[in-house]
Amino acid sequence: MTRRNSPVYTLGELAECLGARLAGDAGRQIVGLATLKEAGPDRVAFLANRAYLKDLADTRAAAVLLHPQHGDACPVARLELDNPYLGYAALSRLFDPLAGREPGGVHPSAVVDPSASLGEGVEVGANAVVEAGVRLGDDVVIGPGAVVGADSVVGAGSRLHANVTVCHGVVVGARAILHSGCVIGGDGFGFAHDGAGWHKIAQLGGVVLGDDVEVGSCSSIDRGALGDTIIGNDVKIDSQVQIAHNVQIGDHSALAGCVGIAGSTRVGKHCMLGGGVGLSGHLTLCDGVQVTGMSLVTNSITEPGVYSSGTGAMKNAQWRKNAVRFKQLDDIAKRLVRLEKGRDA
Amino acid sequence: MTRRNSPVYTLGELAECLGARLAGDAGRQIVGLATLKEAGPDRVAFLANRAYLKDLADTRAAAVLLHPQHGDACPVARLELDNPYLGYAALSRLFDPLAGREPGGVHPSAVVDPSASLGEGVEVGANAVVEAGVRLGDDVVIGPGAVVGADSVVGAGSRLHANVTVCHGVVVGARAILHSGCVIGGDGFGFAHDGAGWHKIAQLGGVVLGDDVEVGSCSSIDRGALGDTIIGNDVKIDSQVQIAHNVQIGDHSALAGCVGIAGSTRVGKHCMLGGGVGLSGHLTLCDGVQVTGMSLVTNSITEPGVYSSGTGAMKNAQWRKNAVRFKQLDDIAKRLVRLEKGRDA
Amino acid sequence: MTRRNSPVYTLGELAECLGARLAGDAGRQIVGLATLKEAGPDRVAFLANRAYLKDLADTRAAAVLLHPQHGDACPVARLELDNPYLGYAALSRLFDPLAGREPGGVHPSAVVDPSASLGEGVEVGANAVVEAGVRLGDDVVIGPGAVVGADSVVGAGSRLHANVTVCHGVVVGARAILHSGCVIGGDGFGFAHDGAGWHKIAQLGGVVLGDDVEVGSCSSIDRGALGDTIIGNDVKIDSQVQIAHNVQIGDHSALAGCVGIAGSTRVGKHCMLGGGVGLSGHLTLCDGVQVTGMSLVTNSITEPGVYSSGTGAMKNAQWRKNAVRFKQLDDIAKRLVRLEKGRDA
Repeated sequence: MTRRNSPVYTLGELAECLGARLAGDAGRQIVGLATLKEAGPDRVAFLANRAYLKDLADTRAAAVLLHPQHGDACPVARLELDNPYLGYAALSRLFDPLAGREPGGVHPSAVVDPSASLGEGVEVGANAVVEAGVRLGDDVVIGPGAVVGADSVVGAGSRLHANVTVCHGVVVGARAILHSGCVIGGDGFGFAHDGAGWHKIAQLGGVVLGDDVEVGSCSSIDRGALGDTIIGNDVKIDSQVQIAHNVQIGDHSALAGCVGIAGSTRVGKHCMLGGGVGLSGHLTLCDGVQVTGMSLVTNSITEPGVYSSGTGAMKNAQWRKNAVRFKQLDDIAKRLVRLEKGRDA
Repeated sequence: MTRRNSPVYTLGELAECLGARLAGDAGRQIVGLATLKEAGPDRVAFLANRAYLKDLADTRAAAVLLHPQHGDACPVARLELDNPYLGYAALSRLFDPLAGREPGGVHPSAVVDPSASLGEGVEVGANAVVEAGVRLGDDVVIGPGAVVGADSVVGAGSRLHANVTVCHGVVVGARAILHSGCVIGGDGFGFAHDGAGWHKIAQLGGVVLGDDVEVGSCSSIDRGALGDTIIGNDVKIDSQVQIAHNVQIGDHSALAGCVGIAGSTRVGKHCMLGGGVGLSGHLTLCDGVQVTGMSLVTNSITEPGVYSSGTGAMKNAQWRKNAVRFKQLDDIAKRLVRLEKGRDA
Repeated sequence: MTRRNSPVYTLGELAECLGARLAGDAGRQIVGLATLKEAGPDRVAFLANRAYLKDLADTRAAAVLLHPQHGDACPVARLELDNPYLGYAALSRLFDPLAGREPGGVHPSAVVDPSASLGEGVEVGANAVVEAGVRLGDDVVIGPGAVVGADSVVGAGSRLHANVTVCHGVVVGARAILHSGCVIGGDGFGFAHDGAGWHKIAQLGGVVLGDDVEVGSCSSIDRGALGDTIIGNDVKIDSQVQIAHNVQIGDHSALAGCVGIAGSTRVGKHCMLGGGVGLSGHLTLCDGVQVTGMSLVTNSITEPGVYSSGTGAMKNAQWRKNAVRFKQLDDIAKRLVRLEKGRDA
């Protein structure tokens, strides 16, 4: 990445960009965003959660992005919008130092196979590798040290950060963001046993990522055994996530850090998996399922809703006693039934 | 990787390769594999699981690989074999686009130390690094961006995919497959505390991988503190797995995704650890132990069998009530005993 | 890395370096360390744990590092020290093959932006990339294939192993050790929902690592949304750990492998998180908290001590019965109350 100066906007420009109603000096220069508490007089803050309403009166921000209902309580200039959190998201992208940079072209140290095709405005970073038959859409950025394997396709506007690996025969949709260290298209975990040891099943499928997919640092999405592993549009995947072969994830689902999904499981649309959740293989989760952090799901889920497993944390001394009792739980339940029968007799 | 054309075989060639009995046109050309349901007339399907028997009658495959007992039910040509799943594994490797490629030699952008020794047919990919004193056996493939640290040894026929890191002084056996992003030989987690803070214990051991080991994307195997971390022959390790210093894994064991094994634990031969399983440090698991997904094992296991921990997932509203009761479980058990005594009095 | 000969010291040199009392031949040459059981006559062993006292009488080591109380029981030369484990840590660093190497300078294949500033004795490995505006302190080592993003700072004496990624605008303190495959400063997981899908919140904060921080292989520390993610001094982080945006970790805390910490959670000083522990977002853990392996913490902790969740592992057949009863636990507790009321009536 080449350096760029931090962007500066006027309040008027920000209001126009957001479609927000501005109450205040449209010419005021803004250099960035901050929380209500930490914003100085050259920054915009936002109020999107009532828990922070207490910080509004004392803010030193140049202006606050908020819902019109809080306009009167705002001691400084304001940008009014019905969904201020969405407005914050839009502003954050304006101030992103990676946005709006001039593309750097293909770095002389990058190795791009002559058979690869590169769209307009493509950047390939230092010591990156683009193998034979790869197609990179317009404005694709391949970070330094990243590798795109033979015959893979990366859609327009996608960014692969430094040291990303996209293996051979993978399809990445448009506007994807793949963070450093993630691996798309490593082999799925497939072996046949002959009674003595393992025989590898070559993983002949690929991975298809839809449009607007994000994959976090050090996450891995394995290629399919025969068919493809399929990630829908607008699916957001955090860091340290493992998605096994032939998994399918529906559009707009979000997977928090350290999630692991075993082979051939299908997750519906608009699902949300909390950090560290595990899904066993060959399950189906319908649309709209939420699973709370570190839960293990071993059966398919056919009704939308929130699901959980595990026990809450407690002091270790207390936990030891209870955990021992857990091993006696079936016995406890049976003894209770006997007592109940005795009472009723 | 350079491109290659997809392989094409005749049914007769496939039958000979498998040692299967062919009933059908030996000259029929086959371009790949697919499931019974999805196979077109230029592909071979297989039946290895009775759950898919229902798909046999309607398959459009060129031929089906199956057990002789299902031969009569097969509407198309067939390849009969006593273990069709093993046959599928063999066929999958024939159609692997990575197999049978001409080795690409040492790419001009790769940095190979003059003191490294390379066997016959070795390929070192673009921007890969092979440090001083490394020995690469015949037909080893080092993917683009991969690094092999000083004095490490990689056995014949092994493949390190793109962006793999093998640190210094590591031994990788023959025919290993190391997937992108995995790290073999990072430091174990060892520190001495002086009452105020931590003092690093240099990790002076190495890692030894046996023959036919596979390690998944983004997995890490740490080097030993004094002795080595040792992975046996034919051990299969999935993605996102962490193996700490001085762990030993017996031959033919398989570790699914996201497994974590703490320091100095020994896992026997023919063990299977489900996804997300955690093993505490300094344990011994005997041969033939299976642990189901996301279980935590804190004590040694001396009998083969299947082990589990945790609770199944349920609706969050139900779970909340039960999880609160878990904290009262010891109390519940004691009150039950009092009631039982009262009844018997 | 270039090769070096293994270091050799005399017993007298080691005693001086440790400030230990030597009983034995000060001129004896020592080539390394080993356990009491495995040490040969050119190695020093140590006794830091009474569990290994049984191995002392038969050791073949050149000398043993131990507490003075065990001096008389030692059959060979000895180095007496009040804290022999701390002494072992110090010796291990003397014998570390990575220590004391001559720095290799900037490898010709490395790409270092002309605007980067490099201190004295800096080494940049083969095919590494140092972007614009980066500042590397004295004696920094950047491993082969590692990438340091624009405007990041790495403090004196820090080592980034092969294929590490430090993203743009990250601050790494002095004497850090970052292991292969780790990623510092990937985007935090932040999105606003518009009722239909996700809108990215650009992650405008950075990551600040204090001095003497270690980060294990394949771990990830995400950049902050507005402010920074902050890791204190002397914090030790194992492999496969995920630290989300705006997390703060206090000085001297240690996180074992596979830990996951969700956004904005604050961990105090001198905390220890066992392998696979999960912390929900927006929590505060006070100083001195220990959490045992694979526990999930969903509430803030205000008292030092040891905390746990989950159930111990048991045979699967036993577990199945108890896990079913867990789902009935609230009902069991209520029925018990009814029985108790009946008895008292």
